[in-house]
Amino acid sequence: MANFKGHALPGSCFLLLGLCWSVKYPLRHCWRRRQPKGRQKLPLFFNRIDLIEGALIIFLAFVGIMAEQFVPDGPHAHLYLRETQSWVKLMNWQHSTMYLFFGIWGIVKVLSMSSLPVPLGFDRLALSLAFFIEGFLFYFHVHMRPPLDTHIHSLLFVAMFGVAASTLLEVFMRGNIILELLRTSQTILQGSWFFQIGFVLYPLNGVQWDLKEHDNIMFVTMCFCWHLAVALLIVGINYCIGWCCVQRCAGRGGDIEIGMRNASSSQKALLQDSDEE
Amino acid sequence: MANFKGHALPGSCFLLLGLCWSVKYPLRHCWRRRQPKGRQKLPLFFNRIDLIEGALIIFLAFVGIMAEQFVPDGPHAHLYLRETQSWVKLMNWQHSTMYLFFGIWGIVKVLSMSSLPVPLGFDRLALSLAFFIEGFLFYFHVHMRPPLDTHIHSLLFVAMFGVAASTLLEVFMRGNIILELLRTSQTILQGSWFFQIGFVLYPLNGVQWDLKEHDNIMFVTMCFCWHLAVALLIVGINYCIGWCCVQRCAGRGGDIEIGMRNASSSQKALLQDSDEE
Amino acid sequence: MANFKGHALPGSCFLLLGLCWSVKYPLRHCWRRRQPKGRQKLPLFFNRIDLIEGALIIFLAFVGIMAEQFVPDGPHAHLYLRETQSWVKLMNWQHSTMYLFFGIWGIVKVLSMSSLPVPLGFDRLALSLAFFIEGFLFYFHVHMRPPLDTHIHSLLFVAMFGVAASTLLEVFMRGNIILELLRTSQTILQGSWFFQIGFVLYPLNGVQWDLKEHDNIMFVTMCFCWHLAVALLIVGINYCIGWCCVQRCAGRGGDIEIGMRNASSSQKALLQDSDEE
Amino acid sequence: MANFKGHALPGSCFLLLGLCWSVKYPLRHCWRRRQPKGRQKLPLFFNRIDLIEGALIIFLAFVGIMAEQFVPDGPHAHLYLRETQSWVKLMNWQHSTMYLFFGIWGIVKVLSMSSLPVPLGFDRLALSLAFFIEGFLFYFHVHMRPPLDTHIHSLLFVAMFGVAASTLLEVFMRGNIILELLRTSQTILQGSWFFQIGFVLYPLNGVQWDLKEHDNIMFVTMCFCWHLAVALLIVGINYCIGWCCVQRCAGRGGDIEIGMRNASSSQKALLQDSDEE
Repeated sequence: MANFKGHALPGSCFLLLGLCWSVKYPLRHCWRRRQPKGRQKLPLFFNRIDLIEGALIIFLAFVGIMAEQFVPDGPHAHLYLRETQSWVKLMNWQHSTMYLFFGIWGIVKVLSMSSLPVPLGFDRLALSLAFFIEGFLFYFHVHMRPPLDTHIHSLLFVAMFGVAASTLLEVFMRGNIILELLRTSQTILQGSWFFQIGFVLYPLNGVQWDLKEHDNIMFVTMCFCWHLAVALLIVGINYCIGWCCVQRCAGRGGDIEIGMRNASSSQKALLQDSDEE
Repeated sequence: MANFKGHALPGSCFLLLGLCWSVKYPLRHCWRRRQPKGRQKLPLFFNRIDLIEGALIIFLAFVGIMAEQFVPDGPHAHLYLRETQSWVKLMNWQHSTMYLFFGIWGIVKVLSMSSLPVPLGFDRLALSLAFFIEGFLFYFHVHMRPPLDTHIHSLLFVAMFGVAASTLLEVFMRGNIILELLRTSQTILQGSWFFQIGFVLYPLNGVQWDLKEHDNIMFVTMCFCWHLAVALLIVGINYCIGWCCVQRCAGRGGDIEIGMRNASSSQKALLQDSDEE
Repeated sequence: MANFKGHALPGSCFLLLGLCWSVKYPLRHCWRRRQPKGRQKLPLFFNRIDLIEGALIIFLAFVGIMAEQFVPDGPHAHLYLRETQSWVKLMNWQHSTMYLFFGIWGIVKVLSMSSLPVPLGFDRLALSLAFFIEGFLFYFHVHMRPPLDTHIHSLLFVAMFGVAASTLLEVFMRGNIILELLRTSQTILQGSWFFQIGFVLYPLNGVQWDLKEHDNIMFVTMCFCWHLAVALLIVGINYCIGWCCVQRCAGRGGDIEIGMRNASSSQKALLQDSDEE
Repeated sequence: MANFKGHALPGSCFLLLGLCWSVKYPLRHCWRRRQPKGRQKLPLFFNRIDLIEGALIIFLAFVGIMAEQFVPDGPHAHLYLRETQSWVKLMNWQHSTMYLFFGIWGIVKVLSMSSLPVPLGFDRLALSLAFFIEGFLFYFHVHMRPPLDTHIHSLLFVAMFGVAASTLLEVFMRGNIILELLRTSQTILQGSWFFQIGFVLYPLNGVQWDLKEHDNIMFVTMCFCWHLAVALLIVGINYCIGWCCVQRCAGRGGDIEIGMRNASSSQKALLQDSDEE
């Protein structure tokens, strides 16, 4: 899959996932914050989204594994050829392994919403593991390549291990909105960085980059920071939109709303007070 | 001990330990969760298991140290030979040291169940230390070996330090089922990886692997992820079986059970509610 | 900006920021500790300072970006020159990126004091990110330079990552005075170390340092520790002054003060008691 | 100070400190645990010990700095010689810097027991910093030395950074007996390892070790683990002795004691119950 498409595909998956989260988490958080006591039940809608998300991930992971195995130049589920005494298309197998762990995450996510007694936080652990395994396999992926290629992939690790670490924290600090937004922006970053790798290594206009020039490495490092800034901006904007939507929806509730606004503003004052502590 | 048996031995020990834990922790967790208030005393049975586990570990560590010292080509408790001015069989001494720290863990485990005032969590610290020392000694074990040999052993570190870190967390978050299952699956991973090392370095069919080929290294990395996936699967299945057993046992309790099921399901709903927070 | 001024400028910014914090945090902490229940509202004065701080940071970051872009030998907002097929002044672009993230922090800081529902602790995350990005870009800044130059810049990382880590902790332990003072002293350290780099690499008296001598590296390492000791001393002195000021101010309150002193001293005794736990 | 004495001196200091702690912390912990509610005030005796400890440390640090500066072949407070354009005895200056930070710790310790409002946990931060600075300076100490020399010193780092990390945790988890015992045993380990370094590099019987042999490196690594095991043993024994002493002392209290023993044993049962959670 060493071409532009091979990087655009996972890139779009992560972008989609990140954008989906950047809508879901702010909405949920704002909804909770508006409730008089913050303990009211969430609309069923959020539960549905989680279920759909889980099912979609399982489906995508399955498709991914199948695609990696049965594309025309794939391994077709053969691992070792006795004739040539060599491994068959290990790259595809590695990608399948990555998809597998995202699939495990999807299964854990769906199971933990069923009536089975899955321990709380297990889905976050599975997600953290999926990101960690992705980074782990990538780490031995980039051996013996030109400097810029190695560098641009190692920046991807930073995003992968960063998101793995922040998701691991979520196991113990469940529902912390800051960690959720951090995970969201790092996932968007990861997605957009896959695209950037595609653009740099397989440029669409056909002009190859010099893979050994130090200036290119410097630019790419800086560019990574810009991607992060844009990811933060997107999350920030979606958070604002989410807040406005919740305000609107609640506004239609009419007379209840006035009490809520008061409650909400006094809560706000309270929060700000503790903010300064 | 540079042969297949030398890797199969610790491998079986860790596999056994991991499998034993993969039964114990889910059972205990499910048992607790079924209790009306979750505060009822555990059956004495669990205490017994811990005691037996501790005693068995002390015994195995003692046997391990003795075996390493007094096998025909062992050091027989000699450390330094004045005649040749050289150390005697340092490899065996290092293995003895590893067993020693697991022995310390066993002693702390047994002591902490006695009437002595051992601080809570000390047994987890001792276990974390045992894994850490194991990884620490292994780290200087693999100097100057062929690439595949070094790589396959460094993957072992990943498991060792991973389990040491997650056990260290348990000192401060005692009884967290996620950490316990994480420790369990990493211990199983470690055990099965010892077997894998044996199969790769001393193949049973006699066909040596090429220790310098990059493809072999790539396969081994991927294989490590598969071992982890299988370890997770085993823990998952045992968790399900444990849950069913607890359900059955409680089912025999008759009329009490109905109240419990209600309590349990309402508790479940409560937990799910906080799950979405 | 490879001259003395180029290091003195960020140095003074960080020094100013650190000194400002070393006054603000002790004052706020002592004020709170003197209050009978520790829950009384802070004077509006502290809120104002935070707002001014945020506005100033946005302004400085904007000025910094503009200066880096439009100094006579700057890139003037050009990133790539098609004619020469090369990047334009990447160093200035990197510095602009660093300023950008400090600007983002300023914006988050101001927003979190507005009536918008910014999650608590988000400003600390933004600050931590700004320090992290600064260290991240510096890390690829110092490639292929003489040993002393590399070493003196890597000591800067230690300060940067240290302050990024301790600020990240503040996201989860908001208002912990120890973390705030740690952040303060590391920021002062960073500021004074920028000056030290300037003095070493572009000495004012014109006598160049030997950039390859091992003794110089050893001295510089030790000097870094002295800077830290001085930074701690400054924070310590400011803490004492802050405490005295709060005592004085409260002293003017007259008859209320006596009750407070009693409360405060009994609180003190209580705290010391738990101190020994 | 590159001789046996130069390693024995800091070694004895750390050993003394560690042994003192290994008596103090178990005694304090056991005393607390025996109290009916665990909230009774500690005897003044413990406060005294802390004060004496702090004063002694300040004194030792001062003596250390003076000794390093004014020994016959010391720098006599000269840092730079203009005539030869070279630094004077940087090694001694580095050692002085290490002592300085331990001195700062002593000062913070004494201050935090005075009536000044030093934030809780600040003394642990100062101690953690002292150990960190010690490791930090050592890290650039061992450049360009023979393999065994480098290795034996890098094992010292492990102890130094380990104790720095566990002390840093104590800032946030004050009074955790496990962290205190961990710090104690690592300090003893550090002390005894200084002696080991002395014995290896400057052997008393005059027979030099081969500094390049791999076997020596392997032995030294293993030996480090044995030192740790011995340090743990010492702490364990002192803990037992402390427990017995507290039992005896309380035993003399007569009729009160019976009530206590009951309370203590029921508390014990309670603790064991939560132990299994």
